[in-house]
Amino acid sequence: MKTILVICDGLGDRPIKELGNKTPLEAAKTPNLDKLAREGICGVMHTLGFGLRPGSDTAHLSIFGYDPKEYYHGRGPFEAAGIGIDLRPGDIAFRGNMGTVDENLVVKDRRAGRIRDTTPYAKALDGIEIDGVKFIVKPGTGYRVGVVMRGPGLSSRISDPDPHELDVKVHEAKALDNSKEARFTANVLNKFLVKAHGILKNLEANKQRIKEGNPPGNYLLVRGAGYVADTPSFEKRYGLKAACIAGAGLYKGVARILGMDGIKAEGATGLPDTNIESKFKTAVKALNQYDFIFIHVKAADSLAEDGNYKGKKEFIEKIDKAAKQLVGLKDTLIVITADHTTPCALKTHSGDPVPLLMNGPGVRVDDIKEFGERNCAKGGLGHIKGLELMPEILNIIGKAPLVGA
Amino acid sequence: MKTILVICDGLGDRPIKELGNKTPLEAAKTPNLDKLAREGICGVMHTLGFGLRPGSDTAHLSIFGYDPKEYYHGRGPFEAAGIGIDLRPGDIAFRGNMGTVDENLVVKDRRAGRIRDTTPYAKALDGIEIDGVKFIVKPGTGYRVGVVMRGPGLSSRISDPDPHELDVKVHEAKALDNSKEARFTANVLNKFLVKAHGILKNLEANKQRIKEGNPPGNYLLVRGAGYVADTPSFEKRYGLKAACIAGAGLYKGVARILGMDGIKAEGATGLPDTNIESKFKTAVKALNQYDFIFIHVKAADSLAEDGNYKGKKEFIEKIDKAAKQLVGLKDTLIVITADHTTPCALKTHSGDPVPLLMNGPGVRVDDIKEFGERNCAKGGLGHIKGLELMPEILNIIGKAPLVGA
Repeated sequence: MKTILVICDGLGDRPIKELGNKTPLEAAKTPNLDKLAREGICGVMHTLGFGLRPGSDTAHLSIFGYDPKEYYHGRGPFEAAGIGIDLRPGDIAFRGNMGTVDENLVVKDRRAGRIRDTTPYAKALDGIEIDGVKFIVKPGTGYRVGVVMRGPGLSSRISDPDPHELDVKVHEAKALDNSKEARFTANVLNKFLVKAHGILKNLEANKQRIKEGNPPGNYLLVRGAGYVADTPSFEKRYGLKAACIAGAGLYKGVARILGMDGIKAEGATGLPDTNIESKFKTAVKALNQYDFIFIHVKAADSLAEDGNYKGKKEFIEKIDKAAKQLVGLKDTLIVITADHTTPCALKTHSGDPVPLLMNGPGVRVDDIKEFGERNCAKGGLGHIKGLELMPEILNIIGKAPLVGA
Repeated sequence: MKTILVICDGLGDRPIKELGNKTPLEAAKTPNLDKLAREGICGVMHTLGFGLRPGSDTAHLSIFGYDPKEYYHGRGPFEAAGIGIDLRPGDIAFRGNMGTVDENLVVKDRRAGRIRDTTPYAKALDGIEIDGVKFIVKPGTGYRVGVVMRGPGLSSRISDPDPHELDVKVHEAKALDNSKEARFTANVLNKFLVKAHGILKNLEANKQRIKEGNPPGNYLLVRGAGYVADTPSFEKRYGLKAACIAGAGLYKGVARILGMDGIKAEGATGLPDTNIESKFKTAVKALNQYDFIFIHVKAADSLAEDGNYKGKKEFIEKIDKAAKQLVGLKDTLIVITADHTTPCALKTHSGDPVPLLMNGPGVRVDDIKEFGERNCAKGGLGHIKGLELMPEILNIIGKAPLVGA
């Protein structure tokens, strides 16, 4: 038996007056998801635990059965892995933006006018070595870059040089503990950022941007220092050959760190215009090569973060249309859920549980007729935690080890 | 967004034949609580965990998010704090009664005829020093006193001198482990109790009682040795300025140890005659000064401990009448629950879960129409643990920290 797990980012919501006190999912017309729910079993999932407000990174780790307390040490590594950097034990990784500073190093634009391609910027900085530490710099999507420090004696216990706000001077990285390693790491990073600024100021691409009246990408703003724990692969842990279909970097990164293969789906963008049908079709096709396919669908979250409940509802209807591809598959467990709730009213993640449906041979079909937050709370799976999802999946597909004898 | 948390002590119960197999809460007419439930979300709470039988002290600590495993080291400190003693690290605190013994130190009345005011008794003993240990003795309500030992090298690992029964000689405190500190503490306490008995025997107030034919308060019966853990304040922990409105000592004590302010409400007694409406009105008024108001309502528990299911039902109707004050508040989360179940049939605490309702902007209103134990078990919150309530409250009021990024 195979598994397709669809994580609809930020799918959960709270009742919205303008939708007749329904959530976007409850208000959306979702005949395919409803059919999967009706012929399956539903529940709600508290990804990190009751009331806890999950980040996207910790939420995904929990869903895959990797306790964030053990396997989460900052977002940087997941972002870096997501843009294709293979991390090694001891590496320190950061999320980075190309930003714009003035002559006094005061931040004027945290995204340098939303530069569309950081390839020449990353190339100019990639491979620099300082005090025995090599800097790996790779372009991400848009204005984003991934930055990795590789060398002996490094620590992730340093503060963010990115001040996270405008009209403030860039910060110096500072050690967050008294260790030699943290002080060394902060010191080397600070030297690198000064050197990088010197290189970026004189970069041909920036001269061009200034000529065109655009803010130059003249400063590398890095944040979220982290390292990768020694992480057993998903395949080793569960005996399931797994692949990921995702548009956005972070989710590819989580999958890569868990040793999942990445599969490209035509038209997958991580944006509302993404081709979900293509992702689902690609997944179904890949079932002959893989046991477990993780599909990430991003935009419900982004739309909710803009407070766009109408857009979120419509995007959910788009997911539903594509979900026709998942109805009636043989010998396949379909799991549809979210990493966290993003209420349109709050425009950010909340700790409310997410809806969950499991459809496949052998599940104890309950009497939930429509897929939605409040219906799912009455479902046969009850309330589960994120770390309980993988054991439940293994149980249904017949791969759970016997505990005891 | 503000929060009012109402803890109705011992509110939960079991079906009672004489009430048509309903619980007192189910049998009571509670239009206001029902309205709050109907327009909110319900669940049941296992204060300490499934089937565990909570004390009032451990239950309250759990509800406020302080794991009793870490923060509970005996009831004494909470009782002592409740009568206004500020405890310091290293203090050992006891619950105390003024009791009556005969000439052979055999207990004849554990409450000395329910003495109504222990002020002269406490005054006569307060401040005595023995072997470098100072005894602080303060009057509680009725026949109760709080006793604190202050000095270096003390331990709470000693047995109760109070024999907890009649017609038995008072006990000597004994060390419960082999430490020097426990032996020292038991020894000093025993010396003090002998000295105290000598003083009390000759107390003017006791001569008066004997003259009136009342049993004298001639022995200090102490029990429940405990110390206070280093406890971070509620405000520090959650960023919420908090206050407590309670009639009974223990609850004031828990609140004081968590750094909550105490607010007096006219007519709050901790007894069935208490003015609940005054407590709720006082809470609503205090919302302009505080983020979080904890209201404790005691008598449902006391009535259940007397097996008085009719009285419990009527008291619940009194709570309901007063709860009109809590209906329709703006930008306020109302949480109504209990610390534990006290079945009238058992006359003591049980481990059955307690009903829980949360009413306020943003909650996923479920389809529970009436507030009651069995309805709540079908509610949208499902089954939660006491330690999960504060995370859920923080989530709803938008104060939950993001875990991850």
